[in-house]
Amino acid sequence: METNGSRNSLTVFHNATIVTMDSDRRVFRNGGIVIERDRIKCIGQSPQILSQFSSVADEIVDLHSQILLPGFVNTHVHTSQQLGRGIADDVDLVTWLHDRIWPYESNMTEEDSYISTLLCGIELIHSGVTCFAEAGGQHVSGMARAVEKLGLRACLTKSIMDCGDGLPPSWADQTADVCIQSQKQLYKMHNNTADGRIRVWFGIRQIMNSTDRLLIETRDAAKDLETGIHMHVAEIPYENEVVKGTRSVERGTVTFLDRIEFLRSNLLAAHTVWVDDTEIGFLARAGVKVSHCPAAAMRMLGFAPVREMLQSGITVSLGTDGAPSNNRMSMVDEMYLASLINKGREVHANGTTDPTALPAETVLTMATINGAKTVLWDDEIGSLEVGKKADLVVIDPNSWSMVPTHDSISSLVYSMRTENIVSVMCNGEWIMKDKKIVNVDEGEVIALAKDASAELLIRARISIPNRMNFI
Amino acid sequence: METNGSRNSLTVFHNATIVTMDSDRRVFRNGGIVIERDRIKCIGQSPQILSQFSSVADEIVDLHSQILLPGFVNTHVHTSQQLGRGIADDVDLVTWLHDRIWPYESNMTEEDSYISTLLCGIELIHSGVTCFAEAGGQHVSGMARAVEKLGLRACLTKSIMDCGDGLPPSWADQTADVCIQSQKQLYKMHNNTADGRIRVWFGIRQIMNSTDRLLIETRDAAKDLETGIHMHVAEIPYENEVVKGTRSVERGTVTFLDRIEFLRSNLLAAHTVWVDDTEIGFLARAGVKVSHCPAAAMRMLGFAPVREMLQSGITVSLGTDGAPSNNRMSMVDEMYLASLINKGREVHANGTTDPTALPAETVLTMATINGAKTVLWDDEIGSLEVGKKADLVVIDPNSWSMVPTHDSISSLVYSMRTENIVSVMCNGEWIMKDKKIVNVDEGEVIALAKDASAELLIRARISIPNRMNFI
Repeated sequence: METNGSRNSLTVFHNATIVTMDSDRRVFRNGGIVIERDRIKCIGQSPQILSQFSSVADEIVDLHSQILLPGFVNTHVHTSQQLGRGIADDVDLVTWLHDRIWPYESNMTEEDSYISTLLCGIELIHSGVTCFAEAGGQHVSGMARAVEKLGLRACLTKSIMDCGDGLPPSWADQTADVCIQSQKQLYKMHNNTADGRIRVWFGIRQIMNSTDRLLIETRDAAKDLETGIHMHVAEIPYENEVVKGTRSVERGTVTFLDRIEFLRSNLLAAHTVWVDDTEIGFLARAGVKVSHCPAAAMRMLGFAPVREMLQSGITVSLGTDGAPSNNRMSMVDEMYLASLINKGREVHANGTTDPTALPAETVLTMATINGAKTVLWDDEIGSLEVGKKADLVVIDPNSWSMVPTHDSISSLVYSMRTENIVSVMCNGEWIMKDKKIVNVDEGEVIALAKDASAELLIRARISIPNRMNFI
Repeated sequence: METNGSRNSLTVFHNATIVTMDSDRRVFRNGGIVIERDRIKCIGQSPQILSQFSSVADEIVDLHSQILLPGFVNTHVHTSQQLGRGIADDVDLVTWLHDRIWPYESNMTEEDSYISTLLCGIELIHSGVTCFAEAGGQHVSGMARAVEKLGLRACLTKSIMDCGDGLPPSWADQTADVCIQSQKQLYKMHNNTADGRIRVWFGIRQIMNSTDRLLIETRDAAKDLETGIHMHVAEIPYENEVVKGTRSVERGTVTFLDRIEFLRSNLLAAHTVWVDDTEIGFLARAGVKVSHCPAAAMRMLGFAPVREMLQSGITVSLGTDGAPSNNRMSMVDEMYLASLINKGREVHANGTTDPTALPAETVLTMATINGAKTVLWDDEIGSLEVGKKADLVVIDPNSWSMVPTHDSISSLVYSMRTENIVSVMCNGEWIMKDKKIVNVDEGEVIALAKDASAELLIRARISIPNRMNFI
């Protein structure tokens, strides 16, 4: 297929299975879609689309029964951590944070961040992502440069901390005021740049590294600028214990955030593993959005009550977390994991298995339209509908990994692999085509990343022990 | 690389990272290996291998720092179920078995089984598998034909049941005698065929479909023929309850099997989820091998006590189970899952996370040498050592999915994807080369599989409800 070039023209795709993820969950068995510049102009049955638009289309593309999906939205990913993949596998949480992640992040340059986001972005695009929510790194300007270049859509966030034990020296002297001002500055510089593909959010790393003043000023500043807040919430039992001990609340982080009116519909709460039914009620009432990160949860945190959160009406979406928490930055694998882990969790929660828990259509909802709601962008992305942005993925199901597809929706969640993702469009432009990343040279980025990450580990004095007898 | 052709010659591979999985867990950073016909003749440092063998080698291949691993051994896979991928997603266990799997399997022809094993074999090879243990299907001759053609190594097993409620009519009249005789016949026909790549084992589907007589005669027949027995063991709590109720033992299946002296070193116990410490002791003492299937466990069964089984000295390996229990037949994904799920299980077992549980080197051991031990073939496969069969995998780590590789062993378990598997050799012959399956045409098999599986579902009167609004 050939469609790049002048994009103020009309492109027609036809002969596709279109999984719209619209509110009626319509799936066109033989669908057509019309893209005008960066938006979807029309969607329907192929014959009607062809008869209506063939004469005015600048280009008509036969998709040969391939599948069209909305681009996936990865709602929690540390793109700056991509160069740190493998630096903290199979270690305890204290080693993970103090000896590996903090030294790594505090030694990054803006250029490292740029390269890391480029490398991560390549992996995201290969897994069908068109939009992500950065979980927080040090150099938003580096991230923004990479996102603009790759053609992705993103909500970028700086990692913010103004207190806490054991922080690296360069981070230890940040006041709440400095934190807020620096983020306002980043907002001014980068929000709504890259043809509107970049938005800037406020960040809170986590409650144990935040003063009350930082939380409250962040809440108010985000409200003033009408943007979102991205925060790690209730990750481990210890966090809730600390909050109970220092902030005199009965439960943990969520209860405290409720008390200070921090829980609002613009809060993206990542992980949200250790919450009880009352706290789920607080989150639901406030319209907080939750990013469930299945791999990181299983590896380090525990079982998030995803079924209960969805049942209470919370918008739960999916995130990969960062490379040192997961290793694979693949929304495709994260969908597969979400299904498996939340089925398995029923044994943990209720003592009995339930293979019907978190069915495929729910997982697909989490990865698409719930993702869009989570990043406060569902007026423009998350489903294939007239007027929305043309953010979409072309999937080839005719390979050994997906054949046979007796259940086409479940096959997208349980059988599909990154190999099946052929092309990805964001904002009306191809960012991957026939498995080739369009806007950067993959080989060059890989070479840059190898060098930069090796130097960074030396600078951060991180060394990884050998697991076997290397000779 | 070019190495096929006359295979009674010497081939030298050099400039590879060779992860031997030998008893010293040696890894050659710049290793060389010499293959003579179907076996490994020498292994060592590249310069020494080159200086010793360059003058006599028929072919010298530079692997350009790619990684060599022993071929993975998938110790529990229903290759006959590949055509049924997607027929039983998100349904309860009774629907799964009675309305989907039994109608599917009981309506298969030998040709269906052949096509299903071909399709499954393609997926196995793409995920680096050189040997598998069939978990039991109806038509061993169909499987054998496919295995021979693909060039794989396998222990084939018929699915055996001689009692039980609700069986399809065509299966309901099998006596223990008929079951044993038919398997002896299969052994005679197929054992040690395909250049020694095929072995035939005895099968027991599960205890609720077996009379005591069948169990005892299977035990004795397998001993006489010096072959293995493949059986699903302790899959769900209900199974243990039935055994307690009907066979008057205190605990469940494993306790009963211990009482009838069925637990022996030639038993491959699949899943083994619902066993207590005493039963783990029984398995360990008898030298029973366990196939842990992480995806199927999470989806349908529960958390197997893998840590405890390994600690008690049991050989635990990895299996994918069949396509309707998992959807992805990928040992690469199963390694990733094994790590995640067994870390997460610590929360379930002990109330606290333990990111150090089941480290990468253990998972890699399970997928290779433990797999070989499980299929009773570790004298010839499972590690790269002089005298063993040349069953190996070539991995390219220089892609977006694995870069950077700060921890090369963990990257094989947590970052690697099927995309990184470039070439696969079994018994000294390439069965995949540069991602192309050598002995069958993938496109032809996919076309055959689509037709055969569609017809089979009609014959079996299985219809899959739509999950969305298809128009």
